[in-house]
Amino acid sequence: MNKDNFAFDLIAQEQQARAGIFHTPHGDIPTPIFAPVGTQATVKAVTPQQLEELGASLVLSNTYHLFLRPGADLVAEMGGLHTFMNWPHPILTDSGGYQVFSLASTRKIDDDGVTFKSHIDGSTQRLTPEKSIEVQEKLGADIIMSLDECAPPFDRQYNEIAMNRTHAWAERCYQAKTRPDQALFGIVQGGIFQDLRENSAQFISAIDFPGYAIGGLSVGETKQETNAVLEWIDPILPQSKPRYLMGVGSPEDIINGILRGIDIFDCVLPTRLARHQAAMTFRGRINLLNAVHTHNSRPIDENCQCYTCRNFSRAYLRYLIVAKEMLAATLVSIHNINTLLELVRQARQAILEQHFQSYANDFLESWHDNQKSPSQRI
Amino acid sequence: MNKDNFAFDLIAQEQQARAGIFHTPHGDIPTPIFAPVGTQATVKAVTPQQLEELGASLVLSNTYHLFLRPGADLVAEMGGLHTFMNWPHPILTDSGGYQVFSLASTRKIDDDGVTFKSHIDGSTQRLTPEKSIEVQEKLGADIIMSLDECAPPFDRQYNEIAMNRTHAWAERCYQAKTRPDQALFGIVQGGIFQDLRENSAQFISAIDFPGYAIGGLSVGETKQETNAVLEWIDPILPQSKPRYLMGVGSPEDIINGILRGIDIFDCVLPTRLARHQAAMTFRGRINLLNAVHTHNSRPIDENCQCYTCRNFSRAYLRYLIVAKEMLAATLVSIHNINTLLELVRQARQAILEQHFQSYANDFLESWHDNQKSPSQRI
Repeated sequence: MNKDNFAFDLIAQEQQARAGIFHTPHGDIPTPIFAPVGTQATVKAVTPQQLEELGASLVLSNTYHLFLRPGADLVAEMGGLHTFMNWPHPILTDSGGYQVFSLASTRKIDDDGVTFKSHIDGSTQRLTPEKSIEVQEKLGADIIMSLDECAPPFDRQYNEIAMNRTHAWAERCYQAKTRPDQALFGIVQGGIFQDLRENSAQFISAIDFPGYAIGGLSVGETKQETNAVLEWIDPILPQSKPRYLMGVGSPEDIINGILRGIDIFDCVLPTRLARHQAAMTFRGRINLLNAVHTHNSRPIDENCQCYTCRNFSRAYLRYLIVAKEMLAATLVSIHNINTLLELVRQARQAILEQHFQSYANDFLESWHDNQKSPSQRI
Repeated sequence: MNKDNFAFDLIAQEQQARAGIFHTPHGDIPTPIFAPVGTQATVKAVTPQQLEELGASLVLSNTYHLFLRPGADLVAEMGGLHTFMNWPHPILTDSGGYQVFSLASTRKIDDDGVTFKSHIDGSTQRLTPEKSIEVQEKLGADIIMSLDECAPPFDRQYNEIAMNRTHAWAERCYQAKTRPDQALFGIVQGGIFQDLRENSAQFISAIDFPGYAIGGLSVGETKQETNAVLEWIDPILPQSKPRYLMGVGSPEDIINGILRGIDIFDCVLPTRLARHQAAMTFRGRINLLNAVHTHNSRPIDENCQCYTCRNFSRAYLRYLIVAKEMLAATLVSIHNINTLLELVRQARQAILEQHFQSYANDFLESWHDNQKSPSQRI
């Protein structure tokens, strides 16, 4: 592993919060960062140019989906994922494990790997740590992930088995990896159990990965439980390497994660909500289909500088949704992605200026006030 | 009517073909021009910014659709169609008549107007010449159209009735119009019948409209019949005003129209084909879903300078289509619109340089050769 490719410069810290730069072969990632998700080698409804204009630096794509369709060989033949999807900036692929557990119609897990049926064509497929690395090396993302098993967070017995399997698989992935231009991250599992999470953080951080991820959160546990897990793990993971909280992306959760030492976030939330008429703001969600917006000539958020808010009224967006026009998904996705990118930009700036604690407190207070009286959000 | 707003400068002519500039309050339209169609106040799957980057100058929107939803009053309240859809450049609205005849579930026409049921909610609606102008004045497009009746092209008796009604309605629209910042065009009807078309061209051109449209074509007649109609009409319409061939937009038909004195075209073809996996090129259509493209790393058209062709392979586009990703419609729409905009740009340049006849002959010869052996198009 050529770690020079993946230096992590920690520029500023304020309590647990960190601002840094993660260097990759396809460019620098300023942290904390939010990565929009391009599940099927496209961030749904937006072009790479629109993502660039939003200032996105890191995009995530899903190994499970690309493994099944169009297949890693085709992506490799087309020059890898960066060329295939025309995103010449940093890309992260997950291991495929999470989707096998959440999407595949049947699955059988053993210590060597997992056999499952494709949700696309029902064909039988198998993923092992070595296979996941092989596929991710063909895809060619800058950051790749170890295969892990994500157990339901409250089942202690299952979490213990899944954690031990995750550890064994992390070592196998580390051994299997060959490309020097990819950074392989290990994943901490352990559900909501302190001893398991601490055990897992110790085990995984003992392997010399260039970055560490925290898996198995945002799958049903409370915010308090998530925060506790992050607080247990934070002192164990090395300060000198980036930490990635997988699948987390509500504004509140991002701020809570940054407060607890997280550098990288990803989530389908901004694009998925956009396709379901919900605009994300720093104060909560706005249902654009609500009739209250019919005559509203204001943008989603007057303080937002995105293309959508600079140019389109809520009345127009609501009309597009009612008329079932694809442009609605595009424009609201642009706005929602910008909301999270702007949030991490503001958080990073606050850390650099050493007032992130007050920024985060103000943000969370305003957020919670607005959740209590959602009508004010309109 | 303030015609200073709508001066038409004829810059060059080569036989019947014309190159000009049509001035409107929202900018100049270089002619010949192709107008992408934004039926519901959005060109499907593309943003106004993407249209601007393609160099589009004129966009068409449909009065019938906007009249029914969101309603002309709402559009007016939002500052008019330019502001509502964020297209600060020239816009053309049709009269609503054509869609009443093609989309409304039931309709009853009389000499005063037409009563129909909305295809959206089944409500009973009525459109008269005065109502069409009222709605189009609220929408606020730069170019608006007289209400006409488009008869099936081969029914002589019906065409005679529809033509006379169209003439009476053109006079009523001319009288009803009040806004000086809109150019009202008259429409020539008459099916495929020479005497009717000549009669109609004479009647309509005797009314001092700032431009004239030819309706009732591209609805089932042959290319030869269309060409004949254009040749009958060309010498009757005044040279000093723009001519608009409604609803026509295949590359072959555009070249044939320019050869016969047409200045303005519009068609849903580029965006509709894009949503059905077909890419338009100067040599014909390419079905991007065809398995032959699976491993093709080339763009749709190596000579095309559009965003899609500069950045994406056929393999990726085909994959997006198979994976049912919205980005496919966006990227192929961008390419298809660019194809027609590039075609009219090249045609205009050829007219300016006085070699349009040979350009058109070469184009049509290559086009017809490729239609005979479509496999070569791949």
